[in-house]
Amino acid sequence: MLAVDEDRVLADLQALAEFGRIGTGVNRPAFSEADLSARQWLGGQMQSAGLDAAIDGIGTVYGRSPHCEQTILVGSHSDSVPNGGWLDGSLGVIFGLEVARASRRAQHGVGVDVISFADEEGTWLPCLGSRSFCGELTKQVLDTAQSKTGERLLHRLASLGLGDRPFARLDPRRHRGYFEAHIEQGPRLEAEGVDIGVVTGIVGMRRHIVHFCGRADHAGTTPMAMRRDAGVAMFSFATSLANGLRGAGGPDAVWNFGIAAVRPGAANVVPAEAELTVEFRDPSPLMIERMEAAFLAAVRDADGALHVAVSSMPNAALAPAAMNTALINMIAEAAAETGASHLRMPSGAGHDAMILAPRIPSAMMFVPSIGGRSHDISENTKEENIRRGFRVFATAVSKTLDRLTQTDDLAASVSSAKKERAS
Amino acid sequence: MLAVDEDRVLADLQALAEFGRIGTGVNRPAFSEADLSARQWLGGQMQSAGLDAAIDGIGTVYGRSPHCEQTILVGSHSDSVPNGGWLDGSLGVIFGLEVARASRRAQHGVGVDVISFADEEGTWLPCLGSRSFCGELTKQVLDTAQSKTGERLLHRLASLGLGDRPFARLDPRRHRGYFEAHIEQGPRLEAEGVDIGVVTGIVGMRRHIVHFCGRADHAGTTPMAMRRDAGVAMFSFATSLANGLRGAGGPDAVWNFGIAAVRPGAANVVPAEAELTVEFRDPSPLMIERMEAAFLAAVRDADGALHVAVSSMPNAALAPAAMNTALINMIAEAAAETGASHLRMPSGAGHDAMILAPRIPSAMMFVPSIGGRSHDISENTKEENIRRGFRVFATAVSKTLDRLTQTDDLAASVSSAKKERAS
Repeated sequence: MLAVDEDRVLADLQALAEFGRIGTGVNRPAFSEADLSARQWLGGQMQSAGLDAAIDGIGTVYGRSPHCEQTILVGSHSDSVPNGGWLDGSLGVIFGLEVARASRRAQHGVGVDVISFADEEGTWLPCLGSRSFCGELTKQVLDTAQSKTGERLLHRLASLGLGDRPFARLDPRRHRGYFEAHIEQGPRLEAEGVDIGVVTGIVGMRRHIVHFCGRADHAGTTPMAMRRDAGVAMFSFATSLANGLRGAGGPDAVWNFGIAAVRPGAANVVPAEAELTVEFRDPSPLMIERMEAAFLAAVRDADGALHVAVSSMPNAALAPAAMNTALINMIAEAAAETGASHLRMPSGAGHDAMILAPRIPSAMMFVPSIGGRSHDISENTKEENIRRGFRVFATAVSKTLDRLTQTDDLAASVSSAKKERAS
Repeated sequence: MLAVDEDRVLADLQALAEFGRIGTGVNRPAFSEADLSARQWLGGQMQSAGLDAAIDGIGTVYGRSPHCEQTILVGSHSDSVPNGGWLDGSLGVIFGLEVARASRRAQHGVGVDVISFADEEGTWLPCLGSRSFCGELTKQVLDTAQSKTGERLLHRLASLGLGDRPFARLDPRRHRGYFEAHIEQGPRLEAEGVDIGVVTGIVGMRRHIVHFCGRADHAGTTPMAMRRDAGVAMFSFATSLANGLRGAGGPDAVWNFGIAAVRPGAANVVPAEAELTVEFRDPSPLMIERMEAAFLAAVRDADGALHVAVSSMPNAALAPAAMNTALINMIAEAAAETGASHLRMPSGAGHDAMILAPRIPSAMMFVPSIGGRSHDISENTKEENIRRGFRVFATAVSKTLDRLTQTDDLAASVSSAKKERAS
């Protein structure tokens, strides 16, 4: 077992929260001054821990365990949404830093590399750092990426002095697995009184924009039967779509109608147009397809009913990412060994782990979020839950290091884990 | 029968449409330069017709038949909404002008006064001119009335040189009845192939703003059962309220959900708040009360369901205004005599007649609007419908003048009209 220091984890979390502090949260969007300062500080901490650390050409801080041919990669991201929470991805970065620090002293045959990916929150491009790390970013994407205010990504990277730096890259022969700790960003763990969320997979998502085209009429002089009311068509569509999605998705399926608008938007004018943004998620690729079919059927059924034309445009899609069974079990076993209760659950939000999961064995664990709050300065986690989460995380990484040192093969550990569960 | 000139009506309508012309419509909001020029032109036309005409202290053009102790008041309004139609109220003003002109030559015992009320469209205050004419405007209302841009009404009136003028006033001993012609502003007459709408009353209206208060949550990480989705609550409320209003209102009842919004309005955030503007109308005071009760019951039923708080605030109300039975019948008889088909129908929009109706016998008639369009430069009425409408209008006024000259009592004409219908 690695000799880790829980108090130092808490002190490091507090120190990192000073960069961009705003009330009880942090304002550290990717490539802001606060984000860069935090990354420089992180790089310094990694070097003090004996790692070869640097900020790479995309802004990711990568601390490499020297003299090791094989490592476990641990970390998350240290950027935030505007006025975000102090833990969020920072929790996983600091957990990773402490584990890597302890690992350097332990002189394991298998090392620990720690990483804070750039711009997970998508100020410029969601999961920018992990996509770059996995070689997913084409030159065209890099050339065209820009912020909401229209500044080009390459321009900002150059102005921060990162323009000529090399890029850290995933090496599956070196990086034998990836562990990421994160706050839950949802209410389940707290509501069910559970200490640890063992993430089985990251849900897939589809987003569509549905457009309703009717006709504007005077709401006093046009008889009800002669109207083509785009607003009423939208209300009716949303209600029946919810039923369709409920029937099509799995038990963890969720959906949302987050944007709804009618035009022209006057009390005495029948709405001529309406627009609804529909999003649905499920951890299972099959269920996502079933929900997609239910969605398209709802659009077909609504089109022309109520004399309103209904059409839809896909707006975004994310494939579900399953976590690695061996590493999932490693976290569950670590929870059991440290006396923490756990729950296997999907992640409803996206994380860097979903970029790494198709390439190397990857796993995530959650600690409870107070009131389920996140992406806001009110986000927090009880100190006892941070401490307990860190013990589980360190134990899981430690057990995986042991397993790799013994077997040189995580696949073997999968079989062994399966046998353990079957027995 | 008055010796009227249909061609002059058309020529006058065209001449009036030159003031503020914009494409096929007019841009003549109350107290704009174009509105004032049009009113000065109208005053000149009235004087040429032998009337004592002037613009009064509120901007109403009033042409008074000299040497008459009793008159029929005819007219409407010549202001428009921004980029409005060329007919709208102008139709009734020009119809009135021609009838007054013919009446001067006929030397009836009972005269015709013609009026173009100020700011019916509410650029400053809806039905400003007719409210002033009926003595409804308190000093406080006048002092505080202002345009959307914040200019005070009294300031504008003074800058137009109207500040010190006397106010035209309704005199029930003089004004024995009021006739107003108008475009329908709706699709019924055209759809049913009918020439004339005989207005039975102007619908009453209630408007409420309904507020839904839930909680913002991450749409990926919050299980469906743990949400307080204000948007879904609004969709569901609107659908069941429509059923409630359908059951409560009369056959001419209409309702509209013209403004609908959700906040914060992001694809991946469960709506924390929603707001819906609900308007409903019915010609019957009883039905309006029934619809109000159905509305309040829907709010009560929705409040707390789906874990969303629902509340409502009244935003506007207009009492229904019944038209005078004797004058209604006069228009219907005039239609029959001139070979025009007619339909008794409520007016779903407000008009100056609703201000006069509680004070003197009042009636309105509609001509068909092409495609039901109004308050837009696309508004129009076929020439044959304008001509036929004018013949009906002139006949109705003429018959009423005859009746008043004979009986000196419109109430008597009510009984006589009733007898005619019963026979």
